[in-house]
Amino acid sequence: MSKAISKKAIQAPTHLNDPVDYKKAFSRGLRVSPGNRDFIFMSGTASLNNKGETCHKGNFTAQAKRTFENLTALLKSEKADWHDVIHTRCYLKSMKYYKQFNDVRNQFYQDQALDPFPASVCVQAVLCRPELLVEIELIAILKK
Amino acid sequence: MSKAISKKAIQAPTHLNDPVDYKKAFSRGLRVSPGNRDFIFMSGTASLNNKGETCHKGNFTAQAKRTFENLTALLKSEKADWHDVIHTRCYLKSMKYYKQFNDVRNQFYQDQALDPFPASVCVQAVLCRPELLVEIELIAILKK
Amino acid sequence: MSKAISKKAIQAPTHLNDPVDYKKAFSRGLRVSPGNRDFIFMSGTASLNNKGETCHKGNFTAQAKRTFENLTALLKSEKADWHDVIHTRCYLKSMKYYKQFNDVRNQFYQDQALDPFPASVCVQAVLCRPELLVEIELIAILKK
Repeated sequence: MSKAISKKAIQAPTHLNDPVDYKKAFSRGLRVSPGNRDFIFMSGTASLNNKGETCHKGNFTAQAKRTFENLTALLKSEKADWHDVIHTRCYLKSMKYYKQFNDVRNQFYQDQALDPFPASVCVQAVLCRPELLVEIELIAILKK
Repeated sequence: MSKAISKKAIQAPTHLNDPVDYKKAFSRGLRVSPGNRDFIFMSGTASLNNKGETCHKGNFTAQAKRTFENLTALLKSEKADWHDVIHTRCYLKSMKYYKQFNDVRNQFYQDQALDPFPASVCVQAVLCRPELLVEIELIAILKK
Repeated sequence: MSKAISKKAIQAPTHLNDPVDYKKAFSRGLRVSPGNRDFIFMSGTASLNNKGETCHKGNFTAQAKRTFENLTALLKSEKADWHDVIHTRCYLKSMKYYKQFNDVRNQFYQDQALDPFPASVCVQAVLCRPELLVEIELIAILKK
């Protein structure tokens, strides 16, 4: 992570359980206490290569991994990483990929020892290219 | 509300009317002037109970109420409430529930004397569990 | 633009190309360095007139132009403009309108000499009125 900004997972256990109970790598909410900091708003990002071509047509898991790699590269270009990410919005072409998506994300976040997890939402949506199976946008906060 | 942060409803009456004209409890936009403050990013939240089970299967109005209650509980855990909320994004399984959704939201916001209303968007989307009929994510800003 | 706040387009050319390569007017991401500033969260905005009626039924291009005009009017009411916008989220009733949408947006942004482009995401979604073909929400940051 670029530098430490306070990020706290929000819980209300009397009303709803924690997503980790069912192996979902997101927090119910995140409280962020930025001092002197920058925001990053990342566009919807998918499994593209550096020529703008779709990678891994027809392979959801490979597309999800590439999407996380692309976002990591974009973050890295700003000397940021996933510890700076406070929110993701995930679009799946079909909710039938929801388990595969969580498998990839859980492993990816575990490899980076993320704690707390970003806040998140995941919905099914038709994306801008018919072969795209997943797209993710994110917000990060980091110190200057 | 936790403490007062300036929030102003945005209007452009020469171009488009105010959503309250057709009984919709959202502002066209919100200008927020935070000083020394925290952000809350709440994940997509639905009608779950504290065991992670879906509540009120098949009953849209009950699911919508429970969703607002869950968000209220999450906000409360941070000593925040709906007066701190600046943006909601609402997903309905079918737009046929749009009137019911607005009935619940209008009453809920009226009970809390919200003014101005949060900025908002509402679209139809397939959600992560087939029995979920509504999901809401939100952003809040509050003083430390 | 209201006043200058640092906004930098994010790129990772080793991993994915720039959207302008295929004539898309958005940045992969935006790094924003606000000092003493305000946020604007604009609700999902569509092709409505000042009586709340839908304009340009059945005409995607006209609806898209009107949507940008409405957002411009809302921004203007706060003495802001598109140079202050850091993020848009675009919903199309059908992805078949994606090219038309980009044609309108490209021209609109070019007319205003936007640089860098806002971060953006675009997905297909059923909107709150059956005749609406496009809806856009946005976030802007501006100095007080």
